[in-house]
Amino acid sequence: MLLCSATLSLSAQTENDLTRYVNPLAGTYKMGHTFPGATVPFGFVQLSPDTDTVGYELNGKYNGEVYRYCAGYQYDDPTIVGFSHTHFSGTGHSDLGDFLIMPTTGELKMNPGTDDKPGSGYRSRFSHSTEKAEPAYYSVMLDDYGIKAELTATTRVGIHKYTFPKAGQAHILLDLMSGIYNFPDKNVWTFLRVENDTLVTGYRQTNGWARTRTVYFAMSFSKPISHYGQKKYDQSVYKGFWRKFDETKDFPEMAGRQIRTWFDFDVKDGETVMVKFSLSPVSTTGAIKNLIAETPGWNFDAFRKKGQEAWNTELGKIKVETTTDEQKRIFYTALYHTFLSPVTFMDVDGMYRGLDQNDHQAKGFTNYTVFSLWDTYRALHPLFNIIQPKRNGDMAKSMMAHYDQSVQKMLPVWSHYGNENWCMIGYHSVPVLVDTYIKGNLDMDPKKLLDAMVKTATHSSYDGIGYYMSMGYVPEDKNGSSVSKTIEYAYDDWCIAEFAKKTGNQAVYEQFKARSENFKNVYDPAIGFMRPKLADGTWKKEFSTMSTHNQGFIEGNAWTYSLFVPHQVDRMIEMMGGPKIFIRHLDSLFTMKLDDSFFAETEDITRDGLIGNYVHGNEPGHHIPYLYNWAGAPKKTQERVRMIMETMYHDAPDGLCGNDDAGQMSAWYVLSALGFYPVCPGSDQYSIGSPMIKTAKLTLENGKTLEIEAVNQSSENIHVTKVTVNGINIRRNYLTHKELMEGGKIIFVMGK
Amino acid sequence: MLLCSATLSLSAQTENDLTRYVNPLAGTYKMGHTFPGATVPFGFVQLSPDTDTVGYELNGKYNGEVYRYCAGYQYDDPTIVGFSHTHFSGTGHSDLGDFLIMPTTGELKMNPGTDDKPGSGYRSRFSHSTEKAEPAYYSVMLDDYGIKAELTATTRVGIHKYTFPKAGQAHILLDLMSGIYNFPDKNVWTFLRVENDTLVTGYRQTNGWARTRTVYFAMSFSKPISHYGQKKYDQSVYKGFWRKFDETKDFPEMAGRQIRTWFDFDVKDGETVMVKFSLSPVSTTGAIKNLIAETPGWNFDAFRKKGQEAWNTELGKIKVETTTDEQKRIFYTALYHTFLSPVTFMDVDGMYRGLDQNDHQAKGFTNYTVFSLWDTYRALHPLFNIIQPKRNGDMAKSMMAHYDQSVQKMLPVWSHYGNENWCMIGYHSVPVLVDTYIKGNLDMDPKKLLDAMVKTATHSSYDGIGYYMSMGYVPEDKNGSSVSKTIEYAYDDWCIAEFAKKTGNQAVYEQFKARSENFKNVYDPAIGFMRPKLADGTWKKEFSTMSTHNQGFIEGNAWTYSLFVPHQVDRMIEMMGGPKIFIRHLDSLFTMKLDDSFFAETEDITRDGLIGNYVHGNEPGHHIPYLYNWAGAPKKTQERVRMIMETMYHDAPDGLCGNDDAGQMSAWYVLSALGFYPVCPGSDQYSIGSPMIKTAKLTLENGKTLEIEAVNQSSENIHVTKVTVNGINIRRNYLTHKELMEGGKIIFVMGK
Repeated sequence: MLLCSATLSLSAQTENDLTRYVNPLAGTYKMGHTFPGATVPFGFVQLSPDTDTVGYELNGKYNGEVYRYCAGYQYDDPTIVGFSHTHFSGTGHSDLGDFLIMPTTGELKMNPGTDDKPGSGYRSRFSHSTEKAEPAYYSVMLDDYGIKAELTATTRVGIHKYTFPKAGQAHILLDLMSGIYNFPDKNVWTFLRVENDTLVTGYRQTNGWARTRTVYFAMSFSKPISHYGQKKYDQSVYKGFWRKFDETKDFPEMAGRQIRTWFDFDVKDGETVMVKFSLSPVSTTGAIKNLIAETPGWNFDAFRKKGQEAWNTELGKIKVETTTDEQKRIFYTALYHTFLSPVTFMDVDGMYRGLDQNDHQAKGFTNYTVFSLWDTYRALHPLFNIIQPKRNGDMAKSMMAHYDQSVQKMLPVWSHYGNENWCMIGYHSVPVLVDTYIKGNLDMDPKKLLDAMVKTATHSSYDGIGYYMSMGYVPEDKNGSSVSKTIEYAYDDWCIAEFAKKTGNQAVYEQFKARSENFKNVYDPAIGFMRPKLADGTWKKEFSTMSTHNQGFIEGNAWTYSLFVPHQVDRMIEMMGGPKIFIRHLDSLFTMKLDDSFFAETEDITRDGLIGNYVHGNEPGHHIPYLYNWAGAPKKTQERVRMIMETMYHDAPDGLCGNDDAGQMSAWYVLSALGFYPVCPGSDQYSIGSPMIKTAKLTLENGKTLEIEAVNQSSENIHVTKVTVNGINIRRNYLTHKELMEGGKIIFVMGK
Repeated sequence: MLLCSATLSLSAQTENDLTRYVNPLAGTYKMGHTFPGATVPFGFVQLSPDTDTVGYELNGKYNGEVYRYCAGYQYDDPTIVGFSHTHFSGTGHSDLGDFLIMPTTGELKMNPGTDDKPGSGYRSRFSHSTEKAEPAYYSVMLDDYGIKAELTATTRVGIHKYTFPKAGQAHILLDLMSGIYNFPDKNVWTFLRVENDTLVTGYRQTNGWARTRTVYFAMSFSKPISHYGQKKYDQSVYKGFWRKFDETKDFPEMAGRQIRTWFDFDVKDGETVMVKFSLSPVSTTGAIKNLIAETPGWNFDAFRKKGQEAWNTELGKIKVETTTDEQKRIFYTALYHTFLSPVTFMDVDGMYRGLDQNDHQAKGFTNYTVFSLWDTYRALHPLFNIIQPKRNGDMAKSMMAHYDQSVQKMLPVWSHYGNENWCMIGYHSVPVLVDTYIKGNLDMDPKKLLDAMVKTATHSSYDGIGYYMSMGYVPEDKNGSSVSKTIEYAYDDWCIAEFAKKTGNQAVYEQFKARSENFKNVYDPAIGFMRPKLADGTWKKEFSTMSTHNQGFIEGNAWTYSLFVPHQVDRMIEMMGGPKIFIRHLDSLFTMKLDDSFFAETEDITRDGLIGNYVHGNEPGHHIPYLYNWAGAPKKTQERVRMIMETMYHDAPDGLCGNDDAGQMSAWYVLSALGFYPVCPGSDQYSIGSPMIKTAKLTLENGKTLEIEAVNQSSENIHVTKVTVNGINIRRNYLTHKELMEGGKIIFVMGK
């Protein structure tokens, strides 16, 4: 559990340097699916070592761990294949891993090889003892070659520094075949031009989780290429070629479905070669613009310093003191993980490729992509509404741009790189837009927003919405995961109703208020659980409250998912038999003893991500520990929340108990550590838990400062006995957004 | 031979309507490789029926006729597969055939089927008796369905009008898999969006003769689609799809490698449905812009009329009177074929995709593509320098834009759609640029032009140029077709030298003047032919002057190709033994008796494209009939030229004796019929032949008018006995460009 103390930053020792509390390796072991590489906050380029992508396409066999390499890196792997420029952080499905670069020496190997056969390909063994991971900096020794690799980044440029041990010919490979979740035929087309002896441009087009995705690049070397070439692994040939050139070597235009390329350099003993690698969503012209704008010169340390300053600016928005150093590291690592995505998705001039596959210019906002909304509407975007309001407004505008470009006229479900991948369920753009708007962070015509939300929520051919609208629930025999869909639609509908009410549209308010009650239609009072209903109005007969498969839920069972009525918690409690029964129900959830079969079929989590039947390693339960507050048992909320913080988050590679899910898991920690959590985004309330910090100082974008103090906080004093906001005693279980944003001081008095 | 008198225009009967003399079906039978469909002059959209593409990919077997469908249509085929929007005219290799549309009724068939099994797919039988082909108009009855199909076009929009016989469900298929020369895996990606119930957008990306080519479209229907869908023929799936939608029907975003789509319409008896289909080289946004700008409303006849007016404007630049009506039809059909390509390659706002795969805006010129330069530098571009000087200047600028975007820093060799396909040999952009510049039609910095030409001509890794520069010839054992390359480089070098001299660069003049003598290095005086030389300086031993394969030549044998020294004809004659021997040599060429094996191995021609060993059906010999002029035997030139015009061009589907080659074959006719031919583009001289017209009136862009009269011209009076230019007797075998362009009257007095 403490494998990585060596990864603490050694480069910056000042008090104000918060990067030294961040451990980018946390979550890289097992199910966290985070990456350890170099990136700036919300950077397009996230340059990180890949220890593999998906087993089967490299090894020629399917290894059964389809999602093992969602972020390209697994801590227990012995080799590094190379360093690629795009990564998801913490997702459960995957894509990206574009433009893998690997420096080598000696015999030129163009195949990555396998990790069980050292020397079988260009990949290299490495040791964690030489590995250093900091915000905006990563370095490692590539043992097979004796090459020291260092990485840093700007928003749109990855910067590599390779120190070669001995004089001779150094190779730098650019593998255009490599990619994460790289099943056969994922590559659609790749194209590359050697513009001159230090500049290469091109693109990679894939058909993956994003159906039609192209990323463009410009690659600049710090010294001239001596020779270069390609190896082709497909049948595409230059049809009109006819002996005019040798296409394999020193021929400056390469194209095909599957190609790997190499660039050779004559180096001296200990010489470094740097690579600046910029990305663009629209063109190589754009990539060159980005390269020029963001990375003048060749001072690696200056780029690293600038990147780390950017991190200190963002991390410094919340300054905390904690009881232990480890708690501080966990806090800042979590905060770091919340600032990795969504990522900036436009050139320096605002150009980006939209969902319609046309190029657009973002006017008046920064365009972002990677919206894992089923996860992130819960706590990540609410966190941003406190500490990144400008960015969250721009994210909302990016979602609206997606809507404008959508041929379905739907807001994003799970979108990345100008594509909709339709992953998971619901229309959770809605709570993000509503939460952002009501919290004053979205400067946009409310009519346009409402129109987009209503069009999305009434798209009858989408995922059971037609049934939902006509029958009040999604029938399980017509559309799977029907209960999850019904109750999540109901919550989203409540958000629309709230928005309509606040912006004066009574008709829409009434329509969606009525829809928001639909959760009741899938509650079976006979068993006390939500339960899938069939089209004929009867309950599904074969039904297990424990199983997560084919029971009407998605990535959760009835125990967890039945508790999802965040907009009507009181009525849910009443429906379930009143507070007393409800508390007993929650207690059971947290204390059940489960056999191994339950773990085996539960997705995306590690075994220690369970507390009884409560699964913290996935999202459907994230609000549950806070529900005791509604049942008159806030102390139980405080206990559970504190227990989760103490047992589910660690300063270690396996420090996350499940997928970080684009920052949602970490956002849960950040907010809970501050003492509150948004059980129902779209409302202005934050349910009070048990603060983990001793003090926190939030520097808000509105110019105000919010101080939080947890008086007498300790591992024993986990109960909140009193809360004051600017000296006024708060006699309720929640804080309001206004109370946070007007600044001043919130004091939690803690006791046993 | 007179199969198509019915194709004469019936729609326009006035004296000024020259379109009625054009037979778009001429050349569609056998090797002409022209297409009969609808296009405006130099139109991007060339909308034409495809009777097949390449046999093997549709039938699952290779039928041995790889190039049969270069233009998509063969006159002797019994079925039409559909109507596609892009076609080469007359080329010997192929590509394009994008976006095939086919209207059908009855059972929905998504496979094209084969022509030997009626009803096996969506294709339909048709009869030439219902076929009407005019400039900018094509119609035919699709017999299997009783649908009347009519086509017209603007520069960027194809307009379809389909009249359905009976009430019911009409299908309009858009086959995104179909394409010309459509070998397996040619499709890289296709993408389609149903934007609303009358508008569809998308693109097709291919790896064909053009390596990396994408064409975008917007398709607008005159009535709402009732239902639509796709059938997929590849393995690409919507990875995140998960039961959310039925992707096969009424799902508005389709994408994949191999898809066919259908659109249904509820029609009444005899109802017409129109389709406006616009193209763009850069985006669907661009395609929509083009659609809106060029095709307001739904008046098919108005679009057709406008297209035909455009043709009358262009054809009317040369008004001829001839002895027979057939001669007039042959002349205007040839003129029509010269105005089909290069094609306009930019959106209405000037945007186009360049060779660097980036989008560019053409500023101050129209960007053109499809440069079949080995063919067209000979007579097509010289013809344009007389009658289309503005367009030819823009074509030269398009070639320079290609150079600017070229990573090799080379002018185009054979380029289309932002790609270089490297087909054939030489750097014949050079004669086009030089000819255009010295004739005053290219307003560009001569330094920049010279730089581009010199960089191209000194690209040592290109096709033997390195050897050529160091050894004075291309050695056959190092680089095939070495004689053809050597002597064509030498001619191109002469053009550079002339240009350098005229623009004051003495050093380049001397360098390239010396290179222009290199033709002598591959002349073997012992046998009186050009002959391949090896790297050791010896002649290739096994050598046949008759064979066209592996003898050092490309698409020609030593008899034909040895006569290629257009810039030094006098010295060639001297080298070959003086005028007397030279005349005997030419006489032999034209009168040899050949056996069948010669025809069998000679490419791209029909059997009647031969006169002895002279091959008019391919380009290397096009200047040969005029060479008698240099040997003091102009009467023999006049006889041969007249003989060729009378026997090699007909007003019939098989009216061309070989590939029209993007208009070169037709340009030869147009110029020869006017009485002169540019044996050496880059010089200002036109060698006099034997005019076929009685009178011609050329309306020049400089505001002047040139009248040509062939007094006493008849099929017997084929000899030119006297030439006057504005009353002054010309006692030489050539006219100068100045004499043509200053207008006035040229009189050829003809005799027996």
